[in-house]
Parts: sequence; C-alpha cells; structure tokens
Amino acid sequence: MENFVFHNPVKVLFGKGQIANLAPEIPADAKVLITYGGGSIKANGVYDQVKAALAGHHVLEFGGIEPNPHLETLMQAVELIRKEGINFILAVGGGSVIDGTKFIAAAVPFEGDPWDILAKGAPVTAAVPFGVVLTLPATGSEMNIAAVITKWSTQEKLAFLSPLVFPKFSVLDPETTFSLPPRQVSNGIVDAFTHVMEQYLTYPVNAPLQDRMAESILKTLIVEGPKTLANPTDYESRANLVWSATMALNGLIAVGVPQDWTTHMIGHELTALHGLDHAQTLAIVLPGTLTIRRDRKWQKLLQYADRVWGLVDGSEEERVDAAIQKTRDFFESVGVRTHLSDYGVSLETVPAVIKNLEKHGMTALGEHQDINPEVVEQILALCA
Amino acid sequence: MENFVFHNPVKVLFGKGQIANLAPEIPADAKVLITYGGGSIKANGVYDQVKAALAGHHVLEFGGIEPNPHLETLMQAVELIRKEGINFILAVGGGSVIDGTKFIAAAVPFEGDPWDILAKGAPVTAAVPFGVVLTLPATGSEMNIAAVITKWSTQEKLAFLSPLVFPKFSVLDPETTFSLPPRQVSNGIVDAFTHVMEQYLTYPVNAPLQDRMAESILKTLIVEGPKTLANPTDYESRANLVWSATMALNGLIAVGVPQDWTTHMIGHELTALHGLDHAQTLAIVLPGTLTIRRDRKWQKLLQYADRVWGLVDGSEEERVDAAIQKTRDFFESVGVRTHLSDYGVSLETVPAVIKNLEKHGMTALGEHQDINPEVVEQILALCA
Repeated sequence: MENFVFHNPVKVLFGKGQIANLAPEIPADAKVLITYGGGSIKANGVYDQVKAALAGHHVLEFGGIEPNPHLETLMQAVELIRKEGINFILAVGGGSVIDGTKFIAAAVPFEGDPWDILAKGAPVTAAVPFGVVLTLPATGSEMNIAAVITKWSTQEKLAFLSPLVFPKFSVLDPETTFSLPPRQVSNGIVDAFTHVMEQYLTYPVNAPLQDRMAESILKTLIVEGPKTLANPTDYESRANLVWSATMALNGLIAVGVPQDWTTHMIGHELTALHGLDHAQTLAIVLPGTLTIRRDRKWQKLLQYADRVWGLVDGSEEERVDAAIQKTRDFFESVGVRTHLSDYGVSLETVPAVIKNLEKHGMTALGEHQDINPEVVEQILALCA
Repeated sequence: MENFVFHNPVKVLFGKGQIANLAPEIPADAKVLITYGGGSIKANGVYDQVKAALAGHHVLEFGGIEPNPHLETLMQAVELIRKEGINFILAVGGGSVIDGTKFIAAAVPFEGDPWDILAKGAPVTAAVPFGVVLTLPATGSEMNIAAVITKWSTQEKLAFLSPLVFPKFSVLDPETTFSLPPRQVSNGIVDAFTHVMEQYLTYPVNAPLQDRMAESILKTLIVEGPKTLANPTDYESRANLVWSATMALNGLIAVGVPQDWTTHMIGHELTALHGLDHAQTLAIVLPGTLTIRRDRKWQKLLQYADRVWGLVDGSEEERVDAAIQKTRDFFESVGVRTHLSDYGVSLETVPAVIKNLEKHGMTALGEHQDINPEVVEQILALCA
C-alpha cells in the first residue's frame, strides 16, 4: 500500500424526507443562492421541498445550468453572487449543477480570470460555502473536491480539484431521483462503475481492503443497477444505487492505490467535440483502454474476472477477454451503447481528440504515465 | 436501507514517515500537551519522532494513561491543562490513550463533575481540539467519536459519544506498531473483527454495499491478521491490519443498518470486574451472543457463513453452526482464548455482570432491544 492522506468532511444526510432537515446545516443569517439546472426540480416537487425547508432564509435563485456546465453560464451566477452579497449556495441537481456550483464557489473570490483555475491550474484560495441536494446518482460530486467545466466558446472540457470546494453537506434522498429519465439513470450506473474501475483496475500494490471495497461497489452496481432501471420507484434498489455512486468517488477506494483516469480524459474530449453524454463516452472508451492495456493490468484483470464476474474457468487469456466483454455487455445491458458508431461518430475524429489531449497536457496518462498519443490512438481504434 | 447521517471529518495521514508531517496540522501558536501511556513510545522511537516534528511548538507532556483509562488518572491531565492554558492535545498511543484524551478534551471546559458525561449522559458542549499519533491498531478510536472510560474507585466502565471529540487528524504509521507485544496485536485483530460483526451480524435491511464492505474488512483481517503476527515487521500486512482496524469503526459500515453491541457491553463489565483485556472479553462473549441469537440473526449468519468463510455445503443449521465455530477458531488461531475458564473466571461472576449491566441501564441490548438480563445469562452460560 502506498502512503496516503484521506480527508472527507462532507456531512451526508441520506434517505427519505431528508431535505426537510437541511435548514440547520445553513447559517441562519445566510443569504442563499439556489443553483439548479433545466427546471426538472420544479416539475418533480424537489424545488418545493427545498423552498419549504429554507422558509425564513433569504433566498435567491439561479437556474439553467446545463449538462457539462458552461463557463459562460456559470459566470453569470458569479456576477449575481458578487452583486447581491450571497454568502451560501445550495446546489440542487446532479453532477453538472454540483460541478458548476463548485466552480461558481471558487470563482466568486478569485482575482483575475476564473477560467485560469482550470486552464492554468491557478490555485483556489477561497470559496463560497455551499451545500448540495442531489437529484441524480452518478458523478460522486456530492462528496468530493472535483469539478469538470466546459468552456463553450473553445469546446474545452477541463477539471479542477480543491479541498475548498467540498460541499458542507449533501442531502441524498433517493426519492428525488425517481422521476429521472431512464437514460440518465443508465448513464449514472455507467459513470459510477467506471469511476470504480479507474481506481481499481491498475496493478496490485497489496491493498486488499481497498480492492475488496472497490469490488463491493462494482458487484452492488451490477445487481442493483438493472433492478432500479426495471422499477424506478423501488426505493431500496434506488437507494443502493445512490449510495454506491457516492462511494464510488469520495476518495475512499482510492487511498494508497494507483489510479488510471485515461478513459475519463479521452471521454471528456469526445464530449467536448461531439456532445455525447459523459457516460456514453466512458462506455465507449473503457473496454478499449482495458484491452490495449491488458498486459500492464493483467493481474488485476484476472482478479476482476474472478471476484466480480465469477470467471474462473479457461486460460488466463480467456478470462481476461471474458471480463472485458462482460464489462461491455453490462454497459449495453443497462442501455448505454459502447461504440462510437452507435452515436454516429467515426474514427475520423481521432486526430482531433489527440490534438485536444495534447493541448490540455494529457500526453502521459495511465497508472504508469505512459499512455501517450500513440496509445490513445490504439485505444480509440477499438472504439469504432 | 434505513435513513442515516454520515459525517467523519478526521484527516488521516497514513504511511511510513507520516509523523514528520503532523506539524502543519497543529496551529503554530498552540500550547500542546502530549498524552501517552506506559512509556513504550520512549523505547520504540515514536516519542523522538513526535518531539522532532513538534520542534518550535510549546510542548508539555502527560504520561501514564493506563489500559482501560482511569477517570482518576485523566482528571490529573484535566487539571494540568486548565492550569497551564493548554489549547491543543496530541494523543500518542493506542485506543486507551486516545479514548482517555477524548475524555480529557471534553472534561476541560465541562462545568460540574465530568464523570457525569458518562454516568448521566451529560451533554458535551465544547472540547479542546486534539490530534492522534496511533501506535496500536484495534479500537478505531483514531477516526470516531467514541470513548470508553473506567472509574477505578467504583469499577465502572462506561462509554460516551460526541462529534466534538473527533480527532482533528490522525497519523497512522504502521511502522510505529512493529514493536508491539504479540498479545496486543492479537487483541487488536479480535477487537476490529468484533467491531465489524456488531455492525454486520444482525438482520438484512437490503443494504448490500454496507454488507459487502463489512465482509471486505472481515476477509482482510482473516488473511492479514495471521500474516502480521507471523512477521511483525512486514510493512504490507501490518499496514493492511492498521487500515482495516480504522475502517472497522469509523462509522462507514454502520450507515443505514441495525447494530448489536451486546458483546461489547457484556465485555466491558467483565473487564471492569476481572481486569481481562478488552479483546479477551469479546473473544469470549461473541460466539455466545451469536449462538443464543442465532434465530434472529439466521439470514445474516448464513450470508456470513457463505461469503466470509465459504461455507456452502450442508443444511442451514450446519452452516450456521460452522460459521460460529469458525469465528471462535479464528480468535483462538490469532492467540486470543475464548472461554472464561481460560482466564480463571467462573460462571459465579454472572450475577455481578448482570447487576452491573442493570446499574448501567443495559437491560435492552441488541438490534431488537430485547436482550434482557435473562438472555445475557444464557449468553454467559455458553462462555464458561
């Protein structure tokens, strides 16, 4: 096991009716901005629950944060907060709203152009405190320090990390997710599954507890994902999906182990170039990454084959092949297609993807920092 | 899954050499009290590492905190802190030193008799901030809000919980534990294992991720425990034990599931009456608790038999019996005896145990709150 620092101070309020308990988590005299997305929270009752919980607080609103949240949109919220003297934000939505809110929180006190936080790695030294009401299980953003933002004008999708953008609290009521379209639930399952894989499927470092906990999340997603798709209002399976998605990326399974975020980094470029859903890009790229890097990931692929998929018969090569195929089949089975061609994208995009990765400094990806543009090309060739 | 609130803000610094990194975690102008136990830290080099890390800080010391830390000892530290204007404590030791330090931290600002925090459940409304350098993997106290304190004059061993006694940080360097006597390592394995069992072995509530994570810790302890006993200076197996013991009781596997702390509560009385090591009492009582409550725990016992011990053959009854026997055998295999008679204690102690449980309000234990004195008597009858 490698040395590590683990620190996750997010307070999670999980379960039915927990929105009603959020008021004590926000300072009584705070001037609050509610941030949200396309307005589904007004249709499904979440907005009303939040407003009721905040009765007595001074509250303003900022809606319209889009999927793959745009810098251009978020900067409008930054201006609003500066102008109105807002001192607490409540993000009500999924990963895009939460990520967008993290950026807003960091941008408000930032001196200079806040895009530099992503484009130049400018340090975040302060942030407006914020809480979360989660409405979509997928990204884990509700319990971590990461955010991914898209600059629409230049088609760039970049990430930043800062412990200053940990949510103060996150309310996870599975019932708020019942009304999600199936496509978003499917995407969430694939996103969470891939998050785990990118922290687990590297090489062994004698960290058996982290391995087993990662496998625990994968196995839970494999069982509960299809259940919640089949019965969207079944509380139990949805609750298990929500908690799995949060645990998939709150830092815990990453402690002391190598990581490989190749699939995410390639996926970001595909979304930026072609507008594919984030999870669609992961479903396309992950099988290719595992196949091209099978030699370096051999031991963990065998362990994954055995413990997650119960594949114990056949040669090592057969088990590795079968485990990768099972991964692809699982994504397809929950309704996320796994080939670029399924989305009308051809391999003609490869040079543009590689050019953008180079532009963003992503030329040494993977757990060995040896996934260069040539290897990315090999991976993408399998994604057709 | 039941509703829950999860919040664990402890910052963990894990790995070789991490003591050298603790200074930035303590305010530069703090007046620090180092608390420790019997002095082993002076023999094994930990004390020197801590002193070196704190160079530049104003530091006082308070040693001599005993196993099952005594109120009478801890109150001396409380007086010292009040007198010297100490405003940060650094606990260097195992569960007893950490638990004792939690009590000290809460007692310093407490108005009235601090024993009331345990004896009367008096609320903790403030505490001196403190950090931890862990030297014994066992109790999980380094990452939770619980402490168990003994009032020597009345032979009472009681617990209290308060989020105000979360450590600000905990340094977990497995190397600091290499010099532990085997008995303490064995005890730590049993303590951590039992902590997991008391959060896992109840009844199913459709919380598959929590179940699998609990099983992950159990399986890791079963594999890594004997390894680290056989090779005390093998860094990898010791690191895995340390992280497992912390994860066993940091609240994570407890979210949304019922718990049964019967074994711990009975064990505390045995320690208070007979001076047995804490883990010895757990090894004695847990098999009895599982046996007497087998009907209510049936489904989870079968799951435990299958997933943790690989017991899939035979009737349900045979598998349940075998799983309980495997538990007892595991404790014995790591060197902790599982019968009262092994420690020279006879069943004549039963009335005293029950009387003390009644005195401490422990008359409705277990996940169904139906373990009354009569059931405790049945459990203890199996511990002879």
